[in-house]
This record gives sequence, C-alpha cells and structure tokens, in this order.
Amino acid sequence: MNATPSSPRQAFQDFYPEPFAQCYGCGRLNERGLQIKSYWDGDETVCTFTPRPEHTAIPGFVYGGLIASLIDCHSTGSAAAAIYRAEGRALGSEPAVRCVTGSLHVNYLRPTPIDGPLELRGTIKEVKGRKVTVSVTLGAGPTGEVCATGEVVALRIGEDFGL
Amino acid sequence: MNATPSSPRQAFQDFYPEPFAQCYGCGRLNERGLQIKSYWDGDETVCTFTPRPEHTAIPGFVYGGLIASLIDCHSTGSAAAAIYRAEGRALGSEPAVRCVTGSLHVNYLRPTPIDGPLELRGTIKEVKGRKVTVSVTLGAGPTGEVCATGEVVALRIGEDFGL
Repeated sequence: MNATPSSPRQAFQDFYPEPFAQCYGCGRLNERGLQIKSYWDGDETVCTFTPRPEHTAIPGFVYGGLIASLIDCHSTGSAAAAIYRAEGRALGSEPAVRCVTGSLHVNYLRPTPIDGPLELRGTIKEVKGRKVTVSVTLGAGPTGEVCATGEVVALRIGEDFGL
Repeated sequence: MNATPSSPRQAFQDFYPEPFAQCYGCGRLNERGLQIKSYWDGDETVCTFTPRPEHTAIPGFVYGGLIASLIDCHSTGSAAAAIYRAEGRALGSEPAVRCVTGSLHVNYLRPTPIDGPLELRGTIKEVKGRKVTVSVTLGAGPTGEVCATGEVVALRIGEDFGL
C-alpha cells in the first residue's frame, strides 16, 4: 500500500472525505490552512513542513502552537492510515476511516529553529479497537535534531462523526 | 495588581518585552497572529478568543491545533503573571519575566463549536522555582460548556532566553 518513488505520492490527507478536508491543519480544501501531508516510510509515518515567517515564538524559533498543531494533525492522519493498514485495505477504501484527537501531549525539548523544514516522524504504538496511540518526534535544523516529542491518542469516529 | 473596571485593562501580553511580542499566538506585534489577551479574574486567569472561520476542524467545529495554541499561550502568559504576583510586584516591572512551554497536555472532551467566543480559564497550580504549572479549561457555546482541558508546565527563562 505504500506509495513508491515512481508513482506520484498521495498523502493520507488526500483521501480524507470532504468534511475532514476542511481542517485548518491538514485539510486539502482549507486555502488558509497548513495543508500538511503525511506518508508512510516503512513502519513510520513522515511529514515535512516548512514554517511561515509569522510562525514565530521569539525571533528565529517556531511557536509552540504550530508544533502542537503539526503533531496533532500528523498523528490523526497516521492513526487513520494505521487502521487501513491493520484492516489490510487501501487508503481511502470504503468505509472511510475518520479519526479525531482524544488527547495530545507535547514535550518541548529545546527551541525549534524556524529557518528550514521540520520533519515529523510518527510511530504507531497501538491500535486497539477505535483507539490509536501515536508517538511523534519533531526534528529541525541542519542536523535534524529532535526539538519536540509528542503523543496523541486518536479516536476513530463513525460515519455521522459520532464517537 | 489586577486591572479594575474603571481603568483600561492591560493584558499580560501587553507587558511582554519586544522579542516575546512577536509570538504567533500571543505577540501584540505579530500582525498575522492570534494576538490573544489574558487577564486576572480573581485568582483565575481568563482569555476570550473568537475563532476565525478558517480555524475549522470539521465544519462547525474548532480544529484541535487552535485549542492547543490557545491553551499554550494563555498558560505561559498566566505563568508569567503568577510569578510577578508571587514576587509581589507589578506586571511588567523589572526584571521582566519570560516563560516558555516545557510541556503541554490537552484533553479534547467534545467537539468545540466555532460560532462564537471561546473562554479559557487558567488556575495556577504551583509556582516552584522557575517552574509554573497551569491548568486550563476551555468553554464554548451558549452555555459555556467545557470542551477541552489542558495542563502546561511553563519555565521561566533568563534575560538571554537561556533555560
């Protein structure tokens, strides 16, 4: 199910049903949003995002809310992808999988440099019923140093958006 | 030190030194940012923020990253204010107090309606050395129902932004 280098890669978020494609963090239809894109990389999930100049905390560094937002949306995307994979079916196949955030935890280890791409890498810790736990590292700067870590409990919801 | 109804209220963030006033979440000088404002209300801290239409998760509801951002910035502002208060001095008096986020935890209890103001209320749980723990509730909708809760460990940093 992984995209291969020879095919145009489609992100987890490219398969979101339309109501989920409006999200400020990850909706492909939200023109003002961040429009993050997440992919499988083996058993990890990866997302690269370049902060905008206004995403400042103190000059030169990324504000914590952006880091939380990226971890949140990358994790819910990863959780949906993990459920498709656990069920042995292709991304976007019916019934569509939708996940929302139950809880989000972020540890800010050091200031995150703003001048360059951030790389989020997700690990699926557990898929249990409708609950998926994802841990994430956020690397930045020329060496990809890990500046923040996160953990998200994502919850699969029904067709009617009910928990 | 509280603002009184008869005086123009100044928010915690109005006293931030210039490098801290650039933050996307709470900097008064970030024209593209959220520019949140936090105040004392007795022993609690309060911040009211009206989401923009693009801050959508699924239509009608606020995306989780905004909620995390508001809890983050309201908490670091509350932490700085709590340190001034613990030291018995006015907001913005020298030496200026600067706090950054050490960790952020958010529990999303229910979808947060986007059509109206959100009210964040912070409680200072502990001021211990350079560490301040703040818990926050986020209420929304006509009844102010609590839709999310959060806890932030904020860290006071030095004049040179060092931890």
